[in-house]
Amino acid sequence: MAQLPNINENFAEWYNEIVYQSELADLAPVKGCIVIRPYGWAIWENIKTVLDKRIKETGHQNAAFPLLIPESFLKKEASHVEGFSPELAVVTIAGGKKLEEPLVVRPTSETIIHYMFARWLKSYRDLPIKINQWCSVVRWEMRTRPFLRTTEFFWQEGHTAHETLEQAEAEAKMMMQEFVNLAHNYLAIPVITGQKSETEKFAGADKTYTYEAIMQDGKALQMGTSHLISQNFAKVFNMVYQDREGKTAYPHLTSWCGATTRLIGAVIMTHGDQKGLILPPKIAPIQVVIVPIFKSENKEQVLSVAQKIKKDLINCNVSVELDDDENKTPGTKFYHWELRGVPVRIEIGQRDIEKNQAVIADRLGTKNSVNLDQICAEIQKTLDDVQQKLFERAKAKLQSHWFKKAKLTEFVADLDSKGGAYQTGWCQNKECEAKLKEYKATIRCLLPERTFDVCFNCDKKSITDIIVAKAY
Amino acid sequence: MAQLPNINENFAEWYNEIVYQSELADLAPVKGCIVIRPYGWAIWENIKTVLDKRIKETGHQNAAFPLLIPESFLKKEASHVEGFSPELAVVTIAGGKKLEEPLVVRPTSETIIHYMFARWLKSYRDLPIKINQWCSVVRWEMRTRPFLRTTEFFWQEGHTAHETLEQAEAEAKMMMQEFVNLAHNYLAIPVITGQKSETEKFAGADKTYTYEAIMQDGKALQMGTSHLISQNFAKVFNMVYQDREGKTAYPHLTSWCGATTRLIGAVIMTHGDQKGLILPPKIAPIQVVIVPIFKSENKEQVLSVAQKIKKDLINCNVSVELDDDENKTPGTKFYHWELRGVPVRIEIGQRDIEKNQAVIADRLGTKNSVNLDQICAEIQKTLDDVQQKLFERAKAKLQSHWFKKAKLTEFVADLDSKGGAYQTGWCQNKECEAKLKEYKATIRCLLPERTFDVCFNCDKKSITDIIVAKAY
Repeated sequence: MAQLPNINENFAEWYNEIVYQSELADLAPVKGCIVIRPYGWAIWENIKTVLDKRIKETGHQNAAFPLLIPESFLKKEASHVEGFSPELAVVTIAGGKKLEEPLVVRPTSETIIHYMFARWLKSYRDLPIKINQWCSVVRWEMRTRPFLRTTEFFWQEGHTAHETLEQAEAEAKMMMQEFVNLAHNYLAIPVITGQKSETEKFAGADKTYTYEAIMQDGKALQMGTSHLISQNFAKVFNMVYQDREGKTAYPHLTSWCGATTRLIGAVIMTHGDQKGLILPPKIAPIQVVIVPIFKSENKEQVLSVAQKIKKDLINCNVSVELDDDENKTPGTKFYHWELRGVPVRIEIGQRDIEKNQAVIADRLGTKNSVNLDQICAEIQKTLDDVQQKLFERAKAKLQSHWFKKAKLTEFVADLDSKGGAYQTGWCQNKECEAKLKEYKATIRCLLPERTFDVCFNCDKKSITDIIVAKAY
Repeated sequence: MAQLPNINENFAEWYNEIVYQSELADLAPVKGCIVIRPYGWAIWENIKTVLDKRIKETGHQNAAFPLLIPESFLKKEASHVEGFSPELAVVTIAGGKKLEEPLVVRPTSETIIHYMFARWLKSYRDLPIKINQWCSVVRWEMRTRPFLRTTEFFWQEGHTAHETLEQAEAEAKMMMQEFVNLAHNYLAIPVITGQKSETEKFAGADKTYTYEAIMQDGKALQMGTSHLISQNFAKVFNMVYQDREGKTAYPHLTSWCGATTRLIGAVIMTHGDQKGLILPPKIAPIQVVIVPIFKSENKEQVLSVAQKIKKDLINCNVSVELDDDENKTPGTKFYHWELRGVPVRIEIGQRDIEKNQAVIADRLGTKNSVNLDQICAEIQKTLDDVQQKLFERAKAKLQSHWFKKAKLTEFVADLDSKGGAYQTGWCQNKECEAKLKEYKATIRCLLPERTFDVCFNCDKKSITDIIVAKAY
């Protein structure tokens, strides 16, 4: 296994190598696609379990809609087709014959789900409809990177219909709060939330809320979005119902995708270090690895204590691996599991056993001897500590990358050379927004606050603060 | 809601109507595809949870491989391409351009997974590789029916590689046992297991094990299969490794798909009755529905007891729904939940409360008054009872549909008119097997026993017993 590229000098290469070396994913023999290997997929399953529970607790139900969508559906909503048509993969032949109407591999499912909503929705009594689906989608992207942007990626997409605009807006905001909760309390990634500009919003949305994080290299990553969908969708799909007054009405729609396999990339880029991955304990497939340290004369005794520790930890719901491979040195094992970001390592040898102790070493560098009788409680405490420290550390990094600047001229040099998130004012004119293109930067989001009087670019009054950054 | 078609006179129509009326699924606007609605998807999630746990406990790991497969991959293994090419959906355009090599929407993933195995496998130390994936696959079928045969369907596909043929064979058989366990102990469906004939085996397998059930109309349904994959796959994908002697070797492969959304169809057709679905408690999304019976003067009191029961049941992990809709009569509610196959109903009214009782009515017609203080234990017992009774009832039905006959002439009339499973002898010649085509019947499986001396069709010696039936 080659050493990882330097994280400070070559972040992009460091990232790619971590993905492959720690066996999260491998390149697939299809343009822009990856194979998500068991270790990577287990992280995704953990993320999915956390969010799926909350999706259900907030009153949504999972369902499954077809992968293939008639091409004409995509064309019904003008801004939607404009946004997605350059990226579509199209099935033109099926069962040995040319299809009369081509089928698109879903890039997102608004159209087919809205078509079904129209079939199901008759009366205000049928509202709200609150559906979610876990699936993969395909977008033919020019440049791809493992997890961050792949031709096929996995996600959840929630789709809801409501009687009033207020209810729809409350839904879109509530789900954004759930995503922030996932990021903060499970992924240990602090985020910035706000609204997308007209230019950056979802193709077919009236409003898009977003949550964004700043990676260690100072670039922003859009983690997920929640949309108030244009009522135009309800109209083109003829989604009419009888309202409380007996009149025909159109529902108000939302869609939201807060979790995609991109989040695995966010975890890598937020927490990783020169030794490799660092996984937040709450989503780590392996939370604890036990490395027994023995010679042939005490092997049996050390292994039996190690097995006992493993059993104890399983009993208190810790996900644990015992690395008892006799062909590897402890040092090789340390390296192996550090690369894979296992949050806590237990070292146990003859001398530890004599003192009824084990050494707990966390992935952030803290090492302690603990009494074997308290091993479960100590491990739980250490896991909680690591989770907390990762969040605090990431929060400090975010703050150090977050600058307040009144004018573009003041931050353009730094933006270009070091990245970072620049909070500034904006007049909400597209011309000023377009100016950022020259520096390959974008408005990541509009903030709900207004702390600047004047636009970052022109002399007009600022309407709201924004975050400007280069993004993945 | 229209009444269900007569289950005895028109089983096919009865089936379709149940699917739509109980809101398990709806037709999608894509040929042969369905939308699996929340109630149907919740059954699938329950099946998935049960089997996924066992897949992991037996040493497999989940992963995710691309949906799109280069067309050339399918062509590498001659029998595989022959089996699947008539059914393929092909992406020829992506990102606005004609693709140089078309991509096939996976009909199954052997080829792309074997390609990756070849990348990963270097030494005997890398074996076994034991991977599983939950996904959907697409096969362009001529005739489709909801759940039973749809263009897109959901499944798991396990793929493994082993050092020896014996290990591979043991793996294929072990997973078949897991599927039988799922069928018997969760779906309450008794099954027949055996090996497929050369004609009926998987396109690219050396051996295919199958588990089959007989539906209420006497037709067989293939529930799932487990294959010993031809080593030819290892060869065409150049899957070589260094064995224990330092020589190059090819691994022995298996694949198995024991759970597909077809199992939902099997549950409907095995247990349903004239009133609708009957769901085995262990996979029922709603195990218990509480129907409070009140007038305006005692509404508050009855509802508060009903809510208390609901809370108690949730606390003992019962999945429960309280139907407190004031605009529906209890009778309407009974009908609604019976149609949806909820295994147990609790009725609670003023007089029950006065006696500190509730009425437990199970979906099979048994009704009892139970003490409210014992509600959890009583419900648990009733759920277990229903689960057990459903299996016993289905087993009795299977036995009544399972006949032993020496010659085709003895059973061909019944096979044609009433269906059923006919155990008989076979010489293992394809000509005799082909004879069954005239009656639209097939050999469902070869049994491990031999109780007949002579072939069902010719005068040659029988090599093994077989099961002959018409199948879905």
